[in-house]
Amino acid sequence: MNETLADAGEFALIERVTADVVRGPQVLVGPGDDAAVLSVDGALVASTDVFVEHVHFRTDWSSAEDVGHKAIAAAVADIEAMGAIPTGVLIAFSAPKTTQASWVEQCVAGALAECADAHVSLVGGDLSGGQCVSLAVTALGQTGGNTPILRSGARAGDAVAYKGRLGWAAAGLAVLSRGFRSPRMAVQAYQRPQVPYGAGLEAFKNGATALIDTSDGLMADLGHIAQASGVVIDIDFGCLDIPDVIAAVAQASGHDVRDFILGGGEDHALVGTFGWGEVPSTWTVIGQVVPADNQDPAVLLDGQTWLGERGWSHF
Amino acid sequence: MNETLADAGEFALIERVTADVVRGPQVLVGPGDDAAVLSVDGALVASTDVFVEHVHFRTDWSSAEDVGHKAIAAAVADIEAMGAIPTGVLIAFSAPKTTQASWVEQCVAGALAECADAHVSLVGGDLSGGQCVSLAVTALGQTGGNTPILRSGARAGDAVAYKGRLGWAAAGLAVLSRGFRSPRMAVQAYQRPQVPYGAGLEAFKNGATALIDTSDGLMADLGHIAQASGVVIDIDFGCLDIPDVIAAVAQASGHDVRDFILGGGEDHALVGTFGWGEVPSTWTVIGQVVPADNQDPAVLLDGQTWLGERGWSHF
Repeated sequence: MNETLADAGEFALIERVTADVVRGPQVLVGPGDDAAVLSVDGALVASTDVFVEHVHFRTDWSSAEDVGHKAIAAAVADIEAMGAIPTGVLIAFSAPKTTQASWVEQCVAGALAECADAHVSLVGGDLSGGQCVSLAVTALGQTGGNTPILRSGARAGDAVAYKGRLGWAAAGLAVLSRGFRSPRMAVQAYQRPQVPYGAGLEAFKNGATALIDTSDGLMADLGHIAQASGVVIDIDFGCLDIPDVIAAVAQASGHDVRDFILGGGEDHALVGTFGWGEVPSTWTVIGQVVPADNQDPAVLLDGQTWLGERGWSHF
Repeated sequence: MNETLADAGEFALIERVTADVVRGPQVLVGPGDDAAVLSVDGALVASTDVFVEHVHFRTDWSSAEDVGHKAIAAAVADIEAMGAIPTGVLIAFSAPKTTQASWVEQCVAGALAECADAHVSLVGGDLSGGQCVSLAVTALGQTGGNTPILRSGARAGDAVAYKGRLGWAAAGLAVLSRGFRSPRMAVQAYQRPQVPYGAGLEAFKNGATALIDTSDGLMADLGHIAQASGVVIDIDFGCLDIPDVIAAVAQASGHDVRDFILGGGEDHALVGTFGWGEVPSTWTVIGQVVPADNQDPAVLLDGQTWLGERGWSHF
């Protein structure tokens, strides 16, 4: 059966893909009306991320389900990065009318599975024609009355720590780029990032002063914190764990392993700054915040300017 | 100067287009961090709409500013259609890297002007490469403690009434499709819909039992209410105002004027059902809800099945 979006029809397909949607207790009105309605504990936290074929994913490197997983993970990570509690997502989907309806159904199935992992509900969306396949995911969350953790709060003397994975997605991408499919662990990490759900709230509880997720790469994302906070961040490379798989991929593909760990994005680890002694026990300390003095805000590697891969640019 | 998105760079362009963003009092954290933070009065209302070049707009028929206006209007109308109060929007923008940066800047300027008309704040967004120009707009709102107005509440005996414009965008599209630019009033209505902002709350205050906005066309959108409520809606065509401009366009372009008024979408009028005598004075009564009895839910025109244009399909 080769049913296309045109065959299936907009409304019928929306009904099919939302039939299994599980509504969390906060969802007062789910998909199917003009808008969703959710109760909010504290303030609302909202972020949107676009995910386009040939830019953010290739269908020969990621299954439809992988794409759904990854799009949700990337969007929800932004809610975590505010120290907040994710609650819901909306998916705006557009694709050529010749697209297989089954691809869209599997993509939504992957999205719903990731929603379950993240404890969020799919509350709404849109489905439209388009010249290319594109998902825009809006993630919603709540502060629970807590103060959101901004990028601008890092203070000289803070420890820098992360939770999650670093370099895995970049290693997986390097494997796929060379036409290989293994090591599977690296490829899977690229296909479905493992966001440390709950780590945002954990960071809040431990008084994190600044927080971000590594969507662009560790050094680039810490650069956003340094810039917003007006500080210099010094990373101690010796504190970073280099998994054997990543080291092996780097060697086999002729990359500097530091480019994966420091420059690779799309892992959506959380990285933040904490008062010394306040870093949660499940996080890894990798450096410290030093005063900017007369320097421009910057991220250093072992006290030196790092000239390697600086992270992802979208153009 | 022919600066492209690639020349401008993602982060620099985001900074430029958000420099003039005005934050409403509810915006606790605006654009620039991982997510926006807003206070919410009552429950959160959220909806997302995608807007793709060659599907929803053509750059020879709409200026970049028009596209920004229309994308915001369409998304915010969904919040109005819940009887709720719009508060904020997020824009996920993707475009080829060869796109003129000025086009994006003008589009955002149009979006910001529409936000001002709608009394909402641009609170966040994303900017990415892509094979086609696409905007996904998420609109946010709040119930203010009121009960949201669903599509499912229409009851036999209710009056059907609308506020806003009907048929104007379709007439404008017919003009543009034939290569003309006038009558300007029709073309402008297609380029920048005039959403009756505030009418959603007005409908709530008057006890509306069901509510929707005319994005797909009056008959199609009333069909969603009929279906969700399990009722039959009977429209009295004599109650519908036929503006001279629309009648003239219909005649000149060989259309049945009813196809514009009843079938034309994208005007984002609000149409709803009210107890008799409870219709707000600024709304126009155009029909009534009758019991479904043994019939399927349907929308009739003067008691008869209408076989004209049934509204917009996205594939």
